[in-house]
Formats: sequence, C-alpha cells, structure tokens
Amino acid sequence: MNENRNATELVQRLRAKQLINESRILTSLSDRASYAYDASFGHHIPEVVIQPTATEEVSEIVTLANELHVPVYPRGQGTSLSGGPIPVYGGVVLDFSQWDDRLEIYPDDMIAVVSPGVITGHIDEAAKAFSMMYPPDPSSMNVSTIGGNLAENAGGPRGLKYGVTKDYVLGLEIVTANGDIIRTGGQTVKNVTGYDLTKLIVGSEGTLAVITEATLKLVPRPKANKTMLVLFDDLIDSGKAISAILREGITPSKLEIMDQASIKAVEAYQPTGLPIDVEALLLIEIDGHPLAIEEEAEQVRGCCLKNGAREVQIAKSAEEASKFWQARKLVSPAIVQVKPTKISEDATVPRSKIPEMFRILKEIKNANNIDLVVFGHAGDGNLHPNIIADVRDEEEMKRVEKAVGEIFEAAIELGGTLSGEHGIGTMKAPFMEMELGAKGLAMMKTVKESFDPNNILNPGKIFPEKGQKLVLRDG
Amino acid sequence: MNENRNATELVQRLRAKQLINESRILTSLSDRASYAYDASFGHHIPEVVIQPTATEEVSEIVTLANELHVPVYPRGQGTSLSGGPIPVYGGVVLDFSQWDDRLEIYPDDMIAVVSPGVITGHIDEAAKAFSMMYPPDPSSMNVSTIGGNLAENAGGPRGLKYGVTKDYVLGLEIVTANGDIIRTGGQTVKNVTGYDLTKLIVGSEGTLAVITEATLKLVPRPKANKTMLVLFDDLIDSGKAISAILREGITPSKLEIMDQASIKAVEAYQPTGLPIDVEALLLIEIDGHPLAIEEEAEQVRGCCLKNGAREVQIAKSAEEASKFWQARKLVSPAIVQVKPTKISEDATVPRSKIPEMFRILKEIKNANNIDLVVFGHAGDGNLHPNIIADVRDEEEMKRVEKAVGEIFEAAIELGGTLSGEHGIGTMKAPFMEMELGAKGLAMMKTVKESFDPNNILNPGKIFPEKGQKLVLRDG
Repeated sequence: MNENRNATELVQRLRAKQLINESRILTSLSDRASYAYDASFGHHIPEVVIQPTATEEVSEIVTLANELHVPVYPRGQGTSLSGGPIPVYGGVVLDFSQWDDRLEIYPDDMIAVVSPGVITGHIDEAAKAFSMMYPPDPSSMNVSTIGGNLAENAGGPRGLKYGVTKDYVLGLEIVTANGDIIRTGGQTVKNVTGYDLTKLIVGSEGTLAVITEATLKLVPRPKANKTMLVLFDDLIDSGKAISAILREGITPSKLEIMDQASIKAVEAYQPTGLPIDVEALLLIEIDGHPLAIEEEAEQVRGCCLKNGAREVQIAKSAEEASKFWQARKLVSPAIVQVKPTKISEDATVPRSKIPEMFRILKEIKNANNIDLVVFGHAGDGNLHPNIIADVRDEEEMKRVEKAVGEIFEAAIELGGTLSGEHGIGTMKAPFMEMELGAKGLAMMKTVKESFDPNNILNPGKIFPEKGQKLVLRDG
Repeated sequence: MNENRNATELVQRLRAKQLINESRILTSLSDRASYAYDASFGHHIPEVVIQPTATEEVSEIVTLANELHVPVYPRGQGTSLSGGPIPVYGGVVLDFSQWDDRLEIYPDDMIAVVSPGVITGHIDEAAKAFSMMYPPDPSSMNVSTIGGNLAENAGGPRGLKYGVTKDYVLGLEIVTANGDIIRTGGQTVKNVTGYDLTKLIVGSEGTLAVITEATLKLVPRPKANKTMLVLFDDLIDSGKAISAILREGITPSKLEIMDQASIKAVEAYQPTGLPIDVEALLLIEIDGHPLAIEEEAEQVRGCCLKNGAREVQIAKSAEEASKFWQARKLVSPAIVQVKPTKISEDATVPRSKIPEMFRILKEIKNANNIDLVVFGHAGDGNLHPNIIADVRDEEEMKRVEKAVGEIFEAAIELGGTLSGEHGIGTMKAPFMEMELGAKGLAMMKTVKESFDPNNILNPGKIFPEKGQKLVLRDG
C-alpha cells in the first residue's frame, strides 16, 4: 500500500464530510513531529493527526482507514514505556487527549463513566468526593489518559492489593476495525452474557478496537493508611520479610522495594537522609480500618525485625509518610542524572522468586558491564530493573540490548512474564514467542486477524516482524 | 455430518491408539443416559462418554473430533443451570469428574494449581490450611467442579466483595479445537504479555477451548466475620439500606435478600421462626479484622435502622450465624415443595435499580399469573427470580416462558444483563441479540469461528439458532 497517498485521500474525504472541525486535523510537519515519540524508543512521523471528540468521528475515520488501508494509531498523552502509540507505519494518529468531556460518578452504582482522554488521576479525585476510590495507580496517573491505561492494562503500586486497570473495567464502548460502534460488558460487576470482549480489549494495546468510552468500577475509599520504611542489610532478607507479611494475612496496599543502587542514586541527586550502606529498603503502605491497621502495622514491624531488618520506621503523620515516599519518587529523575538514557523494564516473576531474580540481575549487570538499578512493586513480583546508559554510545547500547534479552529470559525461566504492566508494544515484540511458544502466539494472531483483517489498528505492535530484534538505538 | 457414524469412528480410532483405558470409554445406553441432563432443561443422549484424566488424552480426542467433525461436550458434575454441558447435537461428552489428581497450594506465591475435575469447595478447604481463601462460592461449590466453574465464570454471594471466578484465574492450560495444547497467562497477578486469552476462555462455556488445568489466585483468609439478619416491612427500604451501607464505605462479604414469598415458602417447609409478615429480609456478612468488623457491625445496624428496618439481629456465635444462613439455604428446597419445576434466573441489574426491578417483577408475576419468589445477591444487583411451576402443565409453562422473556427485557432496560453468573447455554441464547445487538453478537461469533472453525466445541450454546425461542418444556 502507498500509505502516504492513502492518508492524503483519507483526509480529503474526511474534510468533504465536514464532520470534524479543521482545527482538529493536523497536517503540518511541525504539528505531526510531536506525535512521532512516546516515553520509550523509536521515532516515526505520522501522515496526519486527528483529534476526535466524539464516537461518530472515530467511527467515520476508522471506516475510511479500513477502506483505504491506512494505519490508525490511537494515542493518549504518549507516556507509554513500550512504544504503544508510535506510528511505526505512518498513517493516522488519533489523538484522544482533547476528548475528556465525560467524567461522571454514579455513587449508588459505585461506577464511573469516562471519555478516553480523561486523565486517570482525575477519576480517582472525582471518586474521592464520594468517599470512593479508583485504585489503579500507574506512576504516570497524573499525566496519562484512561484510554492509554485501558489499552495497556496499566498497573501500579496498589496492584498488590487492588489489582490492575482490567479489574476495574465493567464495560466499554468501542469502534471496531470496520467502523462499527459496539458496547461490551455493562454496568454490573457480575455479567456472563457471552464472551468477555471487555477484558480482551483492555490490554490489547489498541490492536483490536478503538476504545471511546469506559464504565469503571469504584470501591470504598479506605478510611486510613499507614506508611513504613524498612531498612535491610541483606537483600535476600527483605524478600523473606515480604513473604512473612503476606503469610501473616496482611495485604499491604503498596509494597515497594529499592535496591542499594537506587538508594545511592537518590542520595547523590537529592539527599533524603537514607543510609547508603543498606542493600535494600522496603516502603510499605497498609490501608483499611484505623483500628485494624494500628495492629497490622505492629505485625508488619514484627515480621521485618524477625527477618533481619536493621530498622523499621512507622510514619507518625501524613507529612512523614509523604517524606518516605519521596525517595521512591526520586528514583527515576535521580538515575537519569547518572546517564541520559533509561531503559525501564517490568519483567515480573512469581513472588517467591524475587530473591532469585535479584541474584540473576546482579549477574547480568556484572557480565554485561552495565549500570542497573532495581526497584519496583516487590509485593506482586513486578520489579523494575532500570538500565542507565547513553544512547549515543553504540557499544554500550549493544551490551544493554543483550542484557535486556537476558532479563526477559530469566523472568520467563523463573515462571514469570515479559511484562507486568508496561505492555509489549514495539519493545518486547521480539521476545513474545519465547514466552508464549509458537502455538500460543499463533492463537493471538488468529484473534488479531479476526478483529482486524486489514491490519489497520496499531500495526507493528505486539506481534514480531519476521526476524525482528530488540534495537534501542533510535530508528 | 452423520454424527452417529463419525462418533463410532472416533471411538474406534481412539481404541486403536490404546491411549485411554477401556473402562473410561462409556458406550452403553445406560451409562450414556446419565449424561443427557444437567440442572436445567433439555435432554440429549450423547453417542459416547469419555473420562479423560490427562491433557494428552484430551488433545487426542479433540484432534480426532475436529477431523471427523464430531461435537465435543466438556462436563464437570452437571450442576449447570443454563444447559452448559448438555450434548444437544450428540457426539462426545468429555466427563472431567474423574480427573481431580492435582490440587496443589503454593503458599509463598499465594496460588493453587488444579486439575479440571477438582471440586471447587476442596480448593478453598486446601487454602484454609495456609490461612488463605479461594473466594468464589457458587451455591453448588461442594458439588461442582472447578472446570465447570471456569467454563461458566461462576459467581456466588461473596462476589460483592471478592468478585467472581474470573478474578481468580491467573493462567490456564487449554486444548484448542485443533488439538493443540497451549498455556495462557501464568503465575503472576500482573501480566500484560499479549492478549488476555485466559479471561476470554473463562466464561466462554466450553465453546472456545477445553480447559485442562488452571492456576488460581488465593487471598489471605479474613480473620473474623459477623452475620446479621435484618427485617424490613417495606422492600424498597431494604434497597435504601443496602445503598446506605455501601455509601458508608463498608463492603459486606455477603449481602443477600429474601422477599416475602421466599420467607413464606421456607417457613411452610421447615419453620425457622422468621416472621412471615415482613416484605424482605437481608442477610449480611462482614469480614476482616476483628476490631474493624466490631465497629462496622454497629454502623451496618445504624444504616438499617435509619432506613426503616423493623429489627436488626447480630449473631453472637458461629452457631447463631449458621442458623441465620439456614433460612437462605432452605429457599431452593422449600420452593420446589410448592410445585415440582423451578426456573432459576439470574438477571442482574445495576445496584441502584434493585427496588425498581422488584417492582417490575411483581407486575410480571401478576400479569402472567405465575408463582415467583425473589432472593439472591442484592449487594451486587444479581437477583435470582425463581419461578415455580409444573412442567406437565403446558398452559402454565407457556405463561412461564413469556414471563422469563419479560424478566430479561426488564433487566436489560434497566441497564443490566441476562446473566450474572449462570451463563447463557441453551436457556438464554434466544435473548442474546436483545442485549448485545446484532453487531455485538456478530463480533462474538467472529471470535467463535476463529477459535473453532468446525464448530465442534460445545455447539448449540450461547449463539441462538435461527428463530430459536425459549422452550422450557422437555425436548
């Protein structure tokens, strides 16, 4: 196909219909150039950017795109860490960031109905007014859109206790590859009417349908919470402490780990007073009934001390709690001070395999001579090994690419998965078969082909191209 | 296709391979006749029943069935209320009830790995030994198999707080329509590697693949619980009380309702001392930390009294609690004393619409002159309108069929769904388009065709045949 010519024709036909205001059809190079990137790697300028604000507009655009075989790339705020919105084959970017008009809370049904461009954090804020909570909390939640979160099935620290985006989606309005508008699921928590297209589409990275509205489940907002900072001389001990806490019957709302390299980077960047001689620290938040968490905090302290913690601090105020969390928030900005390029992975292993994964990560770091820090959601096995490098150093980047492959292999060997919350996108596509096997991958391909026979929806994602390898250098 | 001849050939070829012990291939009419039914309506004798106990056996059978175009009907203990395992086109019944050899708990990963024939209640019991819980609790849990629960995405009273079967499935081993053995998902709570085939297959009623193993998520077992019995003179008030409890930030682990007709039936059958002049009673269980539920029980009491409850009783002991629950358990046996035929529905509405649904159900009952009792999981809108009739009375059954259609229409009009937890099967297939629309249903059909092009997996379920109508008379 000649994308360029077809995209031009798509725009002409769309203009002829006068459905979408000219100001929301961006064709100048300077406008389009900002849509070539996300927060990962790769750089592809789309032929046109359209900013829809209504389902009928999306339907019209997708219908034309399907007819003309023009790729369609839905995009929220471009915070993807896996290449989700990058228009690798050009075509149309559907920029949903302008479509945030609907954010309605129905307190008696404990649901929210939202437009795709609504900022995720705003949903939780709106729910708060009714003493409710929208739990999924990707670290980008104050910037990223719910549409992007839905496409990638985003997770976050609260995943341990509350699950991920998919666990809160009751229904969707979608536009299919042929432009049909369909509703999946509904407004009720229980619904077994036919196939669960809702949960299939959430996390399908925009490759099966375009999401134009979602109905989300809310939960009661916990009445209180408590934050604890725990220091460990030995990383392995921190893993044992995590198991002990969970075996005690306590599910923390957050259970984050930072290794020594992360702590050192933070202290070098903005000293927060953390000791840099510990091998690991845990940040633990428990939430729930005030009386319950009072007692549980003491139990957590006991579990940590019994398993070799050097020190356990329980925050005495909200201010102190947010000071504790400050260190965790500084990890990402701190490590890019060391070198400019950050490769943020999210390989996930069964909880019991965390100490083993740490051991292997250390080996990978030494064998490949790379800068590697590890932090993340230790409670659910979703670690974030972050490699710091300089993209201009081709030799180093080759070592990094090799190390990334080894990290994925290790995760899968330990019974884990390539991606816990960032998605596959372009970044991990070359490794899909390693996890799924040829037959598992073929089955997913069958689903893709039945939903999108002309391969117009976010092509170039999830499924590896023949012979595709991980390349982190720009291209 | 000539099913009969093909099924015979399938058995011959299978025997030639000497893979499956002859004692597990049932061909006599007396053996096969027991597989013609489930707990709903309809009666179809299969050509052969095979009792596999290994994945390779299932793979071999399905491979042959696909080649010979023989329908394959997976079956657990046959407790389905929607016709799930009925072999409507004859062929092979795969009886999984003998395959229960694997029930392993991995406490550090908080997961269980199970064979398809394991009784669901046994999983929760095994978890209990590690102070953990497998929450899904369909009322059949002490009889039904996990394989059947997975196929139908079974729910139960605990759904309000803990969700349904699907929320606890991390990974599956499946056999596809062409006999391939595939693993979906994994062992981690967070996993966004490719499409979520796991959640697509759970609840697909055996029409997309045959489940041969599952990895289930466990949660910490709550340390304490408390049961309350609340009487209401006015049904509408009970709905208001439910909203008030949830708005208070309390999510009960169970929140069941019984209407006056249910109470009367129970008291006529086995008097438990309930007043028969109340319009509704709520049975509420809260669970969690002992200190928290002590306070929450008083809050629940306050919510109920403020909203017109006549009386609130809080069980003082486990014995008293189980006495309270006894009434709820007696509803089903009690109502079949009135008339022999019970049509158990599970139409589900948004929580705020429960009072309105009750009003409409009363109208439907009067307009059609039928015996209707309503009970169920009020907390999540999943009511169980049960019609009692006599299947030998053809005139009455026609009125019942009309009433059932009206119940479905009402649920959908109120923003609800045909089925909250029983599945579609044969029973609700004629109503699918009413809820999903032609395009929504067509999209599901596309999925079915891509997974099972020869339509051998549980054919005759979910998708309506041309012109199919609800018929509750035997056939």
